[in-house]
Amino acid sequence: MKYMPVLVVNMMEGRTDDQKRSLVENVTNAVCESLKCESHKVKIIINEMPGNGYAIGGKLMQDTDEKYKKR
Amino acid sequence: MKYMPVLVVNMMEGRTDDQKRSLVENVTNAVCESLKCESHKVKIIINEMPGNGYAIGGKLMQDTDEKYKKR
Amino acid sequence: MKYMPVLVVNMMEGRTDDQKRSLVENVTNAVCESLKCESHKVKIIINEMPGNGYAIGGKLMQDTDEKYKKR
Amino acid sequence: MKYMPVLVVNMMEGRTDDQKRSLVENVTNAVCESLKCESHKVKIIINEMPGNGYAIGGKLMQDTDEKYKKR
Amino acid sequence: MKYMPVLVVNMMEGRTDDQKRSLVENVTNAVCESLKCESHKVKIIINEMPGNGYAIGGKLMQDTDEKYKKR
Amino acid sequence: MKYMPVLVVNMMEGRTDDQKRSLVENVTNAVCESLKCESHKVKIIINEMPGNGYAIGGKLMQDTDEKYKKR
Repeated sequence: MKYMPVLVVNMMEGRTDDQKRSLVENVTNAVCESLKCESHKVKIIINEMPGNGYAIGGKLMQDTDEKYKKR
Repeated sequence: MKYMPVLVVNMMEGRTDDQKRSLVENVTNAVCESLKCESHKVKIIINEMPGNGYAIGGKLMQDTDEKYKKR
Repeated sequence: MKYMPVLVVNMMEGRTDDQKRSLVENVTNAVCESLKCESHKVKIIINEMPGNGYAIGGKLMQDTDEKYKKR
Repeated sequence: MKYMPVLVVNMMEGRTDDQKRSLVENVTNAVCESLKCESHKVKIIINEMPGNGYAIGGKLMQDTDEKYKKR
Repeated sequence: MKYMPVLVVNMMEGRTDDQKRSLVENVTNAVCESLKCESHKVKIIINEMPGNGYAIGGKLMQDTDEKYKKR
Repeated sequence: MKYMPVLVVNMMEGRTDDQKRSLVENVTNAVCESLKCESHKVKIIINEMPGNGYAIGGKLMQDTDEKYKKR
């Protein structure tokens, strides 16, 4: 059965490679478990957003969250 | 900690609502486990692709997979 | 000055064409005002999501919001 | 060499399946020729936009182009 | 009423943070005014494109617009 | 005839500008040939993915392909 899921994960930048490894492994397993597809069919694109690349309620994250303030 | 993951899942159309329920629940748990974020921060957009809306190797899925042949 | 903004608006389905007219007009004006670009350079793609095509906190909108329950 | 191009084609709805066949075949060949990758590595997602799902210069296509007027 | 708009703004790189602040504020207000939703429900992802990351008519912007020429 | 194709090409980072020039030129020609549209109507966004920004089968490319190993 060809399900071909292609996922895009938009998340704030700053995660370690190990966190990304855990993310893609866990999300791939979750997709395979739910859709009964083979893991090598699952593709994941990670799009990292900087503090001035994501806004909620009209405010940039770098202006509302200390963690993403511009250094 | 605000991680705000917004995911897009591109997959072939035809899954049941229960499969989608299991998908969004499992994927959300996987994201939370990996990124240590709260589940209500995780948004998932499901984009369903018809047989003539996805191609691999230059061929439409409806022309290469019986399951997606146009009825 | 060529700024070429291409926007994608992912929103729940169910809006009227007049709401969409108001949306694309207001958003285009907002982009032009902020970026000082010409309106004909601004492209907007509207992606409408059904109740079983968007999830928050691991739950499909059709299961958490009366408005998007499947009829 | 793994290049893994995943393409998304956003275009107005209304094309025939044969036009889509020609599109995915020609675009896949173009990608392979430019990037020297194997065709089965190339994935193409086609996103069809209705007349009230695409706007230029603050106007919906269905309001500016006879071809996409709502019937 | 939960409308949950998630917007992606693809634009050429090079804007100042103040231009981005004005952009996300104005676009959020425009969305709220048109869809009558609350501003904290509106998410905006900004995707900045370099001169060799955007093309019109088969030409890279860095080759057609002095402003995006590679330094 | 306004077909307005907007393409997004997600590919691994590391290509030269000349490869990108060839890519956008060939893909634009392919789209115009298939859809009989004018080339200046075709927009292409190139999204380059780092080795830790793309995964297949639950593994990051940087962990499975020598070419994308982190230096």
